[in-house]
Amino acid sequence: MWLIIVTMEKKIPYKIYLTEEEIPTAWYNVRADMKTKPAPLLNPGTGKPLKAEELEPIFCKELVKQELDNDTRFIPIPEEVLNFYKMYRPSPLVRAYFLEETLGTPAKIYYKFEGNNTSGSHKLNSAIAQAYYAKEQGLKGVTTETGAGQWGTALSMATQFFGLDCKVFMVKVSYEQKPFRREVMRTYGAEVTPSPSNTTEIGKKILEEFPGTTGSLGCAISEAVEAAVKNEGYRYELGSVLNQVLLHQTIIGLETQAALKKYDIKPDIIIGCAGGGSNLGGLASPFIGEMLRGEADYKIIAVEPASCPSFTRGKFAYDFCDTGHICPLAKMYTLGSTFIPSANHAGGLRYHGMSSILSQLYADGLFEARAVEQTSVFEAARLFARVEGTLPAPESSHAIRVAIDEALKCKETGEEKTIVFGLTGTGYYDLKAYEQFNNGTMNDYIPTDEELAVSLAKLPKVE
Amino acid sequence: MWLIIVTMEKKIPYKIYLTEEEIPTAWYNVRADMKTKPAPLLNPGTGKPLKAEELEPIFCKELVKQELDNDTRFIPIPEEVLNFYKMYRPSPLVRAYFLEETLGTPAKIYYKFEGNNTSGSHKLNSAIAQAYYAKEQGLKGVTTETGAGQWGTALSMATQFFGLDCKVFMVKVSYEQKPFRREVMRTYGAEVTPSPSNTTEIGKKILEEFPGTTGSLGCAISEAVEAAVKNEGYRYELGSVLNQVLLHQTIIGLETQAALKKYDIKPDIIIGCAGGGSNLGGLASPFIGEMLRGEADYKIIAVEPASCPSFTRGKFAYDFCDTGHICPLAKMYTLGSTFIPSANHAGGLRYHGMSSILSQLYADGLFEARAVEQTSVFEAARLFARVEGTLPAPESSHAIRVAIDEALKCKETGEEKTIVFGLTGTGYYDLKAYEQFNNGTMNDYIPTDEELAVSLAKLPKVE
Repeated sequence: MWLIIVTMEKKIPYKIYLTEEEIPTAWYNVRADMKTKPAPLLNPGTGKPLKAEELEPIFCKELVKQELDNDTRFIPIPEEVLNFYKMYRPSPLVRAYFLEETLGTPAKIYYKFEGNNTSGSHKLNSAIAQAYYAKEQGLKGVTTETGAGQWGTALSMATQFFGLDCKVFMVKVSYEQKPFRREVMRTYGAEVTPSPSNTTEIGKKILEEFPGTTGSLGCAISEAVEAAVKNEGYRYELGSVLNQVLLHQTIIGLETQAALKKYDIKPDIIIGCAGGGSNLGGLASPFIGEMLRGEADYKIIAVEPASCPSFTRGKFAYDFCDTGHICPLAKMYTLGSTFIPSANHAGGLRYHGMSSILSQLYADGLFEARAVEQTSVFEAARLFARVEGTLPAPESSHAIRVAIDEALKCKETGEEKTIVFGLTGTGYYDLKAYEQFNNGTMNDYIPTDEELAVSLAKLPKVE
Repeated sequence: MWLIIVTMEKKIPYKIYLTEEEIPTAWYNVRADMKTKPAPLLNPGTGKPLKAEELEPIFCKELVKQELDNDTRFIPIPEEVLNFYKMYRPSPLVRAYFLEETLGTPAKIYYKFEGNNTSGSHKLNSAIAQAYYAKEQGLKGVTTETGAGQWGTALSMATQFFGLDCKVFMVKVSYEQKPFRREVMRTYGAEVTPSPSNTTEIGKKILEEFPGTTGSLGCAISEAVEAAVKNEGYRYELGSVLNQVLLHQTIIGLETQAALKKYDIKPDIIIGCAGGGSNLGGLASPFIGEMLRGEADYKIIAVEPASCPSFTRGKFAYDFCDTGHICPLAKMYTLGSTFIPSANHAGGLRYHGMSSILSQLYADGLFEARAVEQTSVFEAARLFARVEGTLPAPESSHAIRVAIDEALKCKETGEEKTIVFGLTGTGYYDLKAYEQFNNGTMNDYIPTDEELAVSLAKLPKVE
């Protein structure tokens, strides 16, 4: 490794922290500034837009309201949510001095670090809000599904804090392979059930049909929704894709704006990884809002895995949100709900579709997208870990990869661009992935056009 | 769980952060203020105090100097070490508003949180300093041992940063059971060898004698020291117990003092967990210095596991620092170097002895000590995780247990005491321990007087 000696006599500190009073007190709803609003969710039975009363048996009332609200620009953050935020927020905006020095780039690199909390990622920002509204509605508890476990952990922490029950359906293969994640959730009082299970009708049906199955996220969603609808006083909560989730995650972008403003920094490039869209939407949409209102211009880049390239190779069309086809139809960039990406370690970026809001913004040319391969992502991750100290999550490392690429371009051209990227979380539970990388046995499979054509051919017909 | 609603309209924020300019620029050497200096290390062969030249084949020159320096009150922190500190320091001093509310105590509780870095604990504070001095000496690399893996991770991060080799001997049972820790170290470029190994003479000898052994810390130390001495350009580095390590860790206590001063807070009680003493010494010694100089008075409490009660049931005597008896003799509170604590999950608190500095201070009545049982420690850990968000390390949870006990005493008496405790790290790699706790199968074995008498009877004879 290089020997790095940096003199820190620079005006901008290594970490910019807002004070707790400077934490934004309202979430930003980018839909209010969009000329073309995101397409509405459709009832898969009737093909008609879903109304609040159809969504309320599944989701909390206030969250349904936020889901359907295309007009209110700022939605106040309830005081109890703000108080919880103060346990781990504001999150630092870090100047990557050591990374810049190592790359020898004239670019200035910043990252917004969301990993300093026990859930290990930005997911907690929305989990707290969703748990709070469930408590406000007088509910007994909530249900959800989890794959890798970050969302399940975040929701367990939040529901425990607000005194609610939490039933987590965890994809069976993860339940067995990630006992650590399971135990964090149990420590936070959640009931964790491997999915498919015998506790739901759909679970029983799947187990009968496929007795040896290790489960899937689609199946776990179906079980969680069934459990929410069938249990008195329960609702279902989801950690990404939905408009409400993007709304809550804007705390990331708003804090970033405030921190940049504090030091008069004008970013040129903003980079976020994109799975369902909650991180990218949260970080970038306040900046996109400025663009929509004609106040500023940025180059915004969504980064996705080449193994699951929704933006770069998907279709902008109505599709099912789940593989089980019991959820609403959403208009989005999708690879088809039957698409299964090849094995990779960015569990949070394996979704076949994408947030409706981001899909519309992408279709309108507000940002670009790039697909990157796994080995090159882990090369960036390891370099980052070594020079910046923090071991990044595989998901976040997609953004690191492109941030490094952009910084190296600046090295060629000599441009002193300011790059901001989202470091969504830590890789402390992803060491299996690092082990594969360290051993040189990483999988870089990219789907062929023929494979994508198969799942895209199965998109539902919606006029 | 209780429903907690806290209004945060209090003057003191949830987290007190110093600015990066306010990070202390010198470590504090409590020995300068001690009337009775800690007893010197003895050469086990001659029984005479060890001189610098005897220590320098094993340790870096500058570190030997710090080890033997009983006089210099403040030792400047090199600029490159300070720059690395800025990646994760200053660490926050957190006001535990939610814990206070939950306990219903009039006490004010603060904790200094050292877990927000990839090594997961305070160990990094000394690893950076030790790696820096190795680089300054022009060495090729360093060797060390690790059990649970926190120290090994910290040293891997630090040596990687300064461009040095790092050979870690990891106790074989941990190497096999904690593949995550091993992979973090490998990702940071360390060479990790399960101990005992065939790469050293002592390792070979042990393997011949005990072919099926899963290793021990004592054996790993012996291998690491041998590897340091036999490899040109290498030295051995250790993560606790030594005077130099306590010195580096005073950054914790100095930052705590600065943060308290910023808000005019006067602590009454200071609590830290104690294994080898690096955390307790680092947090408490700047406060003890005030006591020694007659400037203030505090109640300071060392917390140790009831399964390994060096302070509360040990003897203050010269003993071997390692079970292999190749290291120097140190005067300390010890249970005897042949003592093996019953299985428990606070790997960092299983050492048979204690820092010489802390031992002398304890003998002089500067602080008290308390031993706590594992299940009650995890009860405190879980409560803390649930109300304060962060999942604590088992070691740190010893301090949480006593902080809660003291806060509950205040509830009885109505006293508004101010309690400060050290939260040394996170429990993200300790979920096996939480699983046992969640399943109610925790081990609370306490050694009998007869058992302790056996190992104490084997103390070396030193006049």
